Order: sequence, then C-alpha cells, then structure tokens
Amino acid sequence: MFELGVVKRCITRADRLAADGLGRFGASTVHEAMGRVGLMKPYMRPIYGGARISGTAVTVLLQPGDNWMMHVVAEQIREGDIVVAAVTADCTDGYFGDLLATSFMARGARGLVIDGGCRDVKDLTEMGFPVWSKAISSKGTIKSTLGSVNIPVVCAGMWVTPGDVIVADDDGVVVVPAAMALATAEAAARREANEGEKRARLASGVLGLDMYNMREPLAKAGLKYID
Amino acid sequence: MFELGVVKRCITRADRLAADGLGRFGASTVHEAMGRVGLMKPYMRPIYGGARISGTAVTVLLQPGDNWMMHVVAEQIREGDIVVAAVTADCTDGYFGDLLATSFMARGARGLVIDGGCRDVKDLTEMGFPVWSKAISSKGTIKSTLGSVNIPVVCAGMWVTPGDVIVADDDGVVVVPAAMALATAEAAARREANEGEKRARLASGVLGLDMYNMREPLAKAGLKYID
Amino acid sequence: MFELGVVKRCITRADRLAADGLGRFGASTVHEAMGRVGLMKPYMRPIYGGARISGTAVTVLLQPGDNWMMHVVAEQIREGDIVVAAVTADCTDGYFGDLLATSFMARGARGLVIDGGCRDVKDLTEMGFPVWSKAISSKGTIKSTLGSVNIPVVCAGMWVTPGDVIVADDDGVVVVPAAMALATAEAAARREANEGEKRARLASGVLGLDMYNMREPLAKAGLKYID
Amino acid sequence: MFELGVVKRCITRADRLAADGLGRFGASTVHEAMGRVGLMKPYMRPIYGGARISGTAVTVLLQPGDNWMMHVVAEQIREGDIVVAAVTADCTDGYFGDLLATSFMARGARGLVIDGGCRDVKDLTEMGFPVWSKAISSKGTIKSTLGSVNIPVVCAGMWVTPGDVIVADDDGVVVVPAAMALATAEAAARREANEGEKRARLASGVLGLDMYNMREPLAKAGLKYID
Amino acid sequence: MFELGVVKRCITRADRLAADGLGRFGASTVHEAMGRVGLMKPYMRPIYGGARISGTAVTVLLQPGDNWMMHVVAEQIREGDIVVAAVTADCTDGYFGDLLATSFMARGARGLVIDGGCRDVKDLTEMGFPVWSKAISSKGTIKSTLGSVNIPVVCAGMWVTPGDVIVADDDGVVVVPAAMALATAEAAARREANEGEKRARLASGVLGLDMYNMREPLAKAGLKYID
Amino acid sequence: MFELGVVKRCITRADRLAADGLGRFGASTVHEAMGRVGLMKPYMRPIYGGARISGTAVTVLLQPGDNWMMHVVAEQIREGDIVVAAVTADCTDGYFGDLLATSFMARGARGLVIDGGCRDVKDLTEMGFPVWSKAISSKGTIKSTLGSVNIPVVCAGMWVTPGDVIVADDDGVVVVPAAMALATAEAAARREANEGEKRARLASGVLGLDMYNMREPLAKAGLKYID
Repeated sequence: MFELGVVKRCITRADRLAADGLGRFGASTVHEAMGRVGLMKPYMRPIYGGARISGTAVTVLLQPGDNWMMHVVAEQIREGDIVVAAVTADCTDGYFGDLLATSFMARGARGLVIDGGCRDVKDLTEMGFPVWSKAISSKGTIKSTLGSVNIPVVCAGMWVTPGDVIVADDDGVVVVPAAMALATAEAAARREANEGEKRARLASGVLGLDMYNMREPLAKAGLKYID
Repeated sequence: MFELGVVKRCITRADRLAADGLGRFGASTVHEAMGRVGLMKPYMRPIYGGARISGTAVTVLLQPGDNWMMHVVAEQIREGDIVVAAVTADCTDGYFGDLLATSFMARGARGLVIDGGCRDVKDLTEMGFPVWSKAISSKGTIKSTLGSVNIPVVCAGMWVTPGDVIVADDDGVVVVPAAMALATAEAAARREANEGEKRARLASGVLGLDMYNMREPLAKAGLKYID
Repeated sequence: MFELGVVKRCITRADRLAADGLGRFGASTVHEAMGRVGLMKPYMRPIYGGARISGTAVTVLLQPGDNWMMHVVAEQIREGDIVVAAVTADCTDGYFGDLLATSFMARGARGLVIDGGCRDVKDLTEMGFPVWSKAISSKGTIKSTLGSVNIPVVCAGMWVTPGDVIVADDDGVVVVPAAMALATAEAAARREANEGEKRARLASGVLGLDMYNMREPLAKAGLKYID
Repeated sequence: MFELGVVKRCITRADRLAADGLGRFGASTVHEAMGRVGLMKPYMRPIYGGARISGTAVTVLLQPGDNWMMHVVAEQIREGDIVVAAVTADCTDGYFGDLLATSFMARGARGLVIDGGCRDVKDLTEMGFPVWSKAISSKGTIKSTLGSVNIPVVCAGMWVTPGDVIVADDDGVVVVPAAMALATAEAAARREANEGEKRARLASGVLGLDMYNMREPLAKAGLKYID
Repeated sequence: MFELGVVKRCITRADRLAADGLGRFGASTVHEAMGRVGLMKPYMRPIYGGARISGTAVTVLLQPGDNWMMHVVAEQIREGDIVVAAVTADCTDGYFGDLLATSFMARGARGLVIDGGCRDVKDLTEMGFPVWSKAISSKGTIKSTLGSVNIPVVCAGMWVTPGDVIVADDDGVVVVPAAMALATAEAAARREANEGEKRARLASGVLGLDMYNMREPLAKAGLKYID
Repeated sequence: MFELGVVKRCITRADRLAADGLGRFGASTVHEAMGRVGLMKPYMRPIYGGARISGTAVTVLLQPGDNWMMHVVAEQIREGDIVVAAVTADCTDGYFGDLLATSFMARGARGLVIDGGCRDVKDLTEMGFPVWSKAISSKGTIKSTLGSVNIPVVCAGMWVTPGDVIVADDDGVVVVPAAMALATAEAAARREANEGEKRARLASGVLGLDMYNMREPLAKAGLKYID
C-alpha cells in the first residue's frame, strides 16, 4: 500500500496445479472452503456473463485517472497470471481497453480484476478476455504519475499479495493466499464431493430441515409453528 | 415485521387463476392496472434476463448474514408459490444458491424475490430458476438466529402479505394483494385490450399528441412553440 | 436549463454524414478524439448489450415522475435523431416503454438516452430500439407539468445542445457538439488508422513499454525495479 | 400501500403515557427492547443534532415531487403526534419547509419523519421543529396528484400503522406498534435499570468478558490466544 | 465543457446589487422564484452549518485528482465572486484546503462550490470560509493536466456560466443566470412579502387547506374522507 | 484477513512519541507527508465534529451483525491505543455504543475507527469518546460468531497492521505503518514549517501562480489566456 514507484520482478506464485484447479470450483465454493473469507466486495462485476477463471495474481497499484502502470505490469505477466489492479482513490475511469487486453493476452494473462473502470467492452467480449470491474466507462486516462507493480494491494476491500490465487466467475472474485492454495483446493473438493448426493435428495423432495437435522436446534432456539 | 421465531403454516393464497394469469401482463402493466402502486424498489434486478413469472407469495424474514429460515420456508412452499425474502437489516450476503434452488423447485416454487444477495448465478441460470435480488455475492451465511416464515414483511420497500400475488420480469417486481388479484387481472386485461390498436396507429406515424388529444391541455398549460 | 413550457421546432442538426459516421468508432474512441471530454456519467447503461448508434440530438426536459413531454418531443423527431431526455430532479421512474418506442421509431428515431428510468425492457429488446438509462423501473408516470423540448439540457452530467451528435454503445454515451462533428470524425479516423498495426505488434508480444517508448520517462519519474 | 385518495379521520392512537414515556429511552434502547426490530433504515438522519422525541404516528403517503397531501395531513394532527411521510417512489425533493412546520406545530405535532427531502433547514432549526429525512433539498414540489392520509405505509423500509409510537433521536427512528407500546416501555425500563451498575463496573476497568461471562463460550467456540 | 487549456479573463458578471441581494432569500426561495429550476444536486453539502452566501460565479474545470487549475482561477477572482469548480470525471479527492482558502479570501472570494472533495475542514470553519462540496477527503491531488477557467461548466448537474449568480446555504446551491438576476430578485421579494402574514395565520391554527382553498380541488380530484 | 478465532496478545506498537506527535498535524498533512498514501475511504466520518486524535492501532475483525469480538478486543487495549474495527462483509449495524465506550475509555483507548455502524451518538458525544464510522444506526447486534483480534485487517479500503499509527480528524482517517512513524512525523513537521510563511504571503494577496512559479510550466503545457 505504501511503496510508490516500485516494480517487483520476483514474486512467489502459488502452486500451479492448485491455482489452476481452484477455478473449477468457482468463487462461492472456494470462499466457503476458506472459512467464508477472501471475497472482494460484491460491486465487482464481470463485463460479460459466463466466464470462470483462476490464476496467480500479479498486482498493480494505479493512481486515479492514470493507467501508466498498466503498461509496466504487462511485462511482469507470465502464462496463467491474472492482473489485479487497485487504485489509490475511488475512480471509475476506463483504465483498460482492447489494446492493453491484446498485450495482456499475448503475455499469457487469463483476465483482469480492477477496482476501477473498463472500456471497449464489446471488443473484450469478442476477444474472450474476461474483466471484473467496478464500472464500465469510456473515460480516458493519462500517463503521468507512478504507482507500483507487484506490491501487496487492497482491491475491492480485499488484501492481495502477488502470487495469490484469484478465482473469479459470475458470483464474484475470491483471493486465496498462495500458502493456502493447496489446502483450499482440497477443502473445496471435499465440499463438492457430497453435493451431488445432497442435490439428488433435495430434488426428490427431501427437505433441508430433515437432511441437515435442523428441526431440533430450531425448536431449541424457540421456533414456533402456528396455524 | 415484529414477530420473530414464528412459522405460520396456514395462509390464504390468492385465487389461483388470477395469480397465474397476471404473469402474462408483466410487472409494468400490472403496476399500472393497480393504479400505479405495488412496485418494489428498482434496485431489485433479475439474475438473468427474459424470465417472467407470477405466483403466490410465501414470505420469510431473515436475519442479516443468516439463511437458516430459508430451510424453514422451503417446507411451506406449494406448487405455484414464489418465495419473498426480507432481511431485518441491509445486507448483500449470498443467502441463496443452487442447493436451496433445487429444494425450492422440488417443492413447486416458481422463483425467489430476495432483498439481499444471491449466488451460484451460473447454476441457477442453467436450472432456469429465476431470482430477483439486490445483489449477487458469494458471501456465505450462517444458521444461528431465528427469523419468521409467512408473516407480513417489507421487501424492497413494499409490504407483502403471505398469499399476495407476485409478478416479476425484466422491469421489476410488483405485489398484488390477494383481495385485489381478480380485479387487477381484469383491469390489466382491459388495459392491454386496446394497446394493439394504439400500437398500430403509432407505428403508422400517428402522434400520441393527437391520439390522446393532448394538444389542447398542453396549450392550456401554457406550452409555446417557437422557431 | 431554465425555460419551461417551450418547444423549439427549428434546430440546427450536425452534419448528417459526420453524425452517421461517428457511430462506427464507438463512444470510447470518439471521447478520446475530442480530447477526453464529452462523456456522460458511467451510470448510464444500455438496457441490452451490443447496440452501437450515433445520430443527432433532439432534447426534452422532463419533470420528475411526469412523461407528458415525451409525447411532445415525438413530433420533433426526424430520421436519424436520438432523443436525449433530462429530468429537473433525480428520479428513476419508468418514463418510456414500448408504445412510445413504437412512436419514436415511426418518426425515425434511432434510440433514447434518458437520465431516468425505462420500462418494457423485453419489448424494447425485441423491437431493437436501444435505450441508455440510469434505471429500469415499472414505476408509472403522470402527464401534468410542462417541461421543454429542444432547449439545451444537462443529461447525466453532460451539456447537450439540440442538434449535437450522440454516440452510444456498451461503453457509454458521448456528446459531440455539432460544430465539432466533422473534426471529431477526422480525429477518430486518424486515431483508428494505426490501431491495427499497434494491435498486431502487441499481439506478437511487443510491450507497450517499448512500442510507446515509455522506459525512459518512467525511469526519469523514478521507477525502480527490484527483485 | 394500496389505497390512494383516502383520508382516515379516526385512528387508534397508542396509549399516551407509553407513547410519551418511550422517548426518554431513545431509539437504540427501544429497538433492543422490542427484540431488535422496528428500526427504519439508517439513511434517515436528523436535520439537526440533539433532538429526541416520541409520539403517535399520523401517516401520509405522498406522490413523488408532490406535497399536496402534506396540507391534508395537517388537519389530522393532534397534540403529541409525529407525522410519518412515505412516498410512492424514491424522491429527494424538498416536500417540507418552514410554513408547513409552522402549521404542524400549531396543530401539536412534535416532529416529522419523511422518506424524502426537507428544506428550510436553518428556519426549522431555529424553530426547534425536528425532522428526520433522507435528504436535504431546495427542490420544490407541486400539488397535483392524490396520495392518502392515515393508511398504513412503508417508510424507510419499516411498516407504520397510524397510531403507532415513533421514537427518534440522533441514532435513528424506531416504530413501536400501538399494541406493544406499554410492554416495550416496561422492557426498555428493565433494560435501563441495571445499565448504571454495568456502566460503573466497566468504568472501573472490569471487562465485559468477565461481567458477561463470555470467556467460556468464546473458548468453546474455539477462540485461541497467541503471543 | 469542451475547451481545455483556456483561461477567459473577461467575463460579464451579473448585476452586483442583484447578486448581493439574492443571498438574503436563500437557496429554496430563489429556486422557487426562478420557477423551480437552477438547483444543483442535493449531494452538495456545506462543510459547516449556518452559512448563507450569494455572489458571482467564476468557474474552473478540473481534471480528476488534479488541482492545478485552482491556482489559475485564484487570479481571476474579484471581490464578491464565488468559485464554482467542476471536474471532468467523478472524483472525491481533496482539491481544496486552508492555503488555497487563504488565497481565495485575499482575492475577495465569498466561498467555493466544488463537485469534488474538500479538506482542512477544521481550519476552513475557523476561517469562516464556506465550502459546498460532494465529499470531505484528505486525499491529495497533483498538478499535471490542464483544465480551464471561466468557461461554462456543469457542476453537480447544473449548467453554470461565468458571471451567473450563485446562492448557497444549508438547503443547497442554486444558479441564477446573470440575465435573470434582477427579475429573480424581484420575484423572490414578492414571494417573501406575504410569507409573514401566511406564517402568522398558520401559527394561529388556520389550515393550509383553507388558506390556500384546497378543499374543492382535492374533492374534485376524488379525495374521500372516511372514519 | 484470513485467520478467524485468533487473539494476538503481543503486538509491536509504533514509537509512542511519534504516535502521539502525529496527531498534531492532522490527517491531511500526515497523508501528504507519507507521499499521498495511507488514507481510508472518505465515507468514514466522525460522529461529532472537532475531534483530532492519534494513537496506536489494536485491530478487530468482526462478523456482520455480530459484535462479540468488541468485548474481546477491549482486554487488549493499552493506554494510547485506537481500536480499528473491520467487518467481513458490508454491514451498517450499530456495533458500538456507550457501554463499550465506557469500557474502552477505562482501558485507555482514545477512540474507535469502525467500517460499520455506531450508536448512542449523543452519549458518546457527551463522554467525548470520538468514533469514525461509515454509518450511525440503532440496529442491534448478536454475539454468536468468532472473528479475530490484532490480525492485519482491511478497514475502509486501507490495510492496518496492529501497532500502526492512526491519525483521525474532521478530514478523515490515515494509517501510518509503525516503521514509518518517525520519518512521517519528521516529514510532516518539515511540511508545516514553511506553511506559516506561505499563508502570510497568500493572505497578503500574492498568488500561488507566482509563489510556486507555476506560470512557466502552465504556459509550456499550453495554457492560453483569452479575453
């Protein structure tokens, strides 16, 4: 948060298999598997529906209305990364469009998570480059003031350290610390393992009240049924 | 609003034919047919476009960040119902996902209207279970504090009594009191009856100014044309 | 902003070729070509994705909750116009629906930009009549108080003079003063001319850092690379 | 919510002593005493600090941008009432100013709670007429469309029946159903009774952890202390 | 809105007596006297209560996060002016503090109206330099990109031409075009003239219903009284 | 962000003299002295005006609608601390009131910074216990789910490590990392040293344009003066 004008080239990325594998579970399951933490604020929305990605975070801290550092972060992208962009003040300007997306894709980025605005939505949709942002805006930016690359940042209320795993889909964006990636993947897998059976039982008309044995604790808490 | 820990099992649902029939008119026409009342706040948005439903309300009052009562309300759902969920404080957490939707569908629910958050948007879209919510969020909830089921609630600024008719589509969500369902259906039908003719005239270039005889009242109100 | 009860019939529309041609560039490019000005606030969103239009503005100033003037402006529409609707106070009511759209289309309008609410979203989508609005709402309006037609208005934070060019797409809405239309079209064309080459170079892996010669100014500004 | 154009003259006001007495406890204590319900949304703010009132509700349902009914409700005010004003759609216009306040005071009103805007803040402050509103705005209103007086309304997310007790102070606005007024006053009194002792103990340095015996349940829930 | 990098030195200020005199009526009365127009959005709030000013506008268009032009506009201030600052994009940064206020006061400015953030609130309050802003924020700004001085701007949704009269108090900010200043002052004076009598009658218990002869139009509109 | 159910007892507080001394400069100056970083979002507002404090952070992570951990953090407070409370999801409930304030004061706390709601505003004002919060709300909370104490948290968009220095006043809340406290105090002192002279020159009518030698860079950037 506090170093400006710095680009860190060497970061420790989370385990590749865990980073790639977490995407299959989606943001909601991963968030639960972590113990209900790690979620960015729900104002972060995908520019188009249906995308689900995971990858390792490279971070960039931008100044309001200034996208200079977007070009600096491009060089630090490796195959399988997701760029996470924070801004030092609230700003909805359109920091990112189709040219930068072309560059990011060429470097191997899987998507962008930006606590600011995005533009060229139609082009990005056609290119299949997913972006989660807080706004869509044509508003242009300048290239004047330094921010930083690959320092820890706060993006949409969540702390992101370079190398963390990002999982993003229609439900939102979750951050998994690199050190927790493997354990989280296992917890998510366990969580999903018995969901199929649960789903089948609920589909057959069994109530969650019975399947989860809730009737007794509800009664104990004082729930009364009246006619 | 004021009873916590209560589940009302017997509610008087609106006339089934009226409840089912109102859906064909859509939220905007039904709202007009009621005399321009009954509309929930416009922050209530469908999680996917194109759905249009009507049905009878079963209500649930949730505590912030707690979806325990969602399992309790499931048991009270009958074929043709729509669940209306209010929360005792503003909260965008994801109270509802694909497992609950599976259960609600098995019980005959046609959709959910929730003054809070929803998750598993991709799954719900594939299942074709429509939800109108104020947010989309992965944020998990707990099961700790009692709310109530089938008491009158305020949802997105509108009073909902169990058994009322809910009409929801891309335009928003409207509540029709059970006692007004038949009259509203008739008024909506009358309203639509001559819309076809109006549409044809407007499409042919006739102006609303002439079709609705507005020129005289506008002049009387002082409207001046200048070049 | 200040004359109520006035309809101006004679307005000077921007050059037709320039007005039509600007649409091809889209809102973001046109905004940049003007020197990064002219953009309405980003809360203006299309009711459906994918539309891109340009045309000449006819303006209407509405009173909150009152759409009387919408019928008055319809008569002033000519082929190739876009209606720009401002409101004298913040209001999300649904001022516009499928009947008015039928009338506007019959008069030759290409779309509507409204700093208020819109309804009948499903019908408008099927009709292919694009609307950019600040809200979607069934809330009905009355016909009681005069506003004005074809006076300059402030819509979503931007000044619009009747006859100005409007460019709108998924990225937002831009206003080009009539007198700047031709020059802006030329600037936009110049801007796009070398974008293809840039895109190809970025796609091949060349960095913006090198393509735009940013390394030296970044170093001069004090950017430090660390490991 | 659903009857327009109606003025109910006879309403059953809550017990006068209970209504008057609840003010002494303030909004937060009364809200707790009711079981943590009854609170309007926190966007309702006093136009000046320090006022604390309670009284019986007379209600008015306004149309957006129209304050005609404010004059109608004035006639229904009795000594000790608080006017509660709802609007059929979100609107921040200034429905209320010093002339209406003069009239309301003359009729015996103790204050106004309005889910809309208020103006003449300086005059109202000097007159000592407290208002809780969602906005302060000079925006003028018209007198054109009927609403209703003394029907149940939803104000700032809370259901208010004419005759209910309203308690308002710097913390917010609470609604106590008339039938619960006495019991709530008693519960609030019990709640306050031992607060003095608690405050003294906390002031002496005793921890809530010990005073409320929280250490064991916290440990049981899994709380771990580390160095 | 569209010229950047320009400082206009010669502007035509509204009639001095009218500009000074309008302050006495306050924002709400002036807004009504203009025919209910001219009001900035109600998110513009004074940094301290009780101030009421009027004066002639000098305008400045700022870039987001950049207060360079604030120093440029200082030179254009004359005795009796109020600075009106717009920003090319939404931004809450603190563009203005005690040093600039010292300079503005020395030049004769009576206050600042800024569609952005302000800081040093404590100092400005002690200095008695009133500011109406959309935010209070310590966030610092840079001096890097040109805006303009004394061009027409849109500030908080309202069009302001240099030389217009600004009236600001606890109720909000109103803009009176220079050419309307005298007529508006007269209309405001007429409006106030009979307010004293009205106030006295209302204070004595006369109802607005009778004083304004509303009973008949209300009955004609269909208002029904029930018990 | 990621450890729940943990209380860290030993934290390294910033240098006491630096922590105490920073308060004298206020939030805006300290934010500038750090290089324009460290500022919480401007929605954090003091519950009463005029307070200015600095101190060392003890942190607490709360669950939405649950203030159990507030009692746990109380025990970790030492003389000169400021409690910084974050919540795992957006929630405006009233987590803090006069009893907790009594306890915090007895432990030596100088104030509270909470990314949630506060109540008992009147009592807290009389006690002189300052709170910066995002909302004021009577809404009660439960004591059911564990959070953590003295782990790093994100509060109002800013990363806070236990022991950091907090500076808060009418302008907002700034976080100074413990390791930067001394250097920041020195930078702030340097910054203020020549402010007196600047203020005097500006007060005498000297323009910032001249005092800061801005005329040449403005001309170089292309600024044009016209009449």
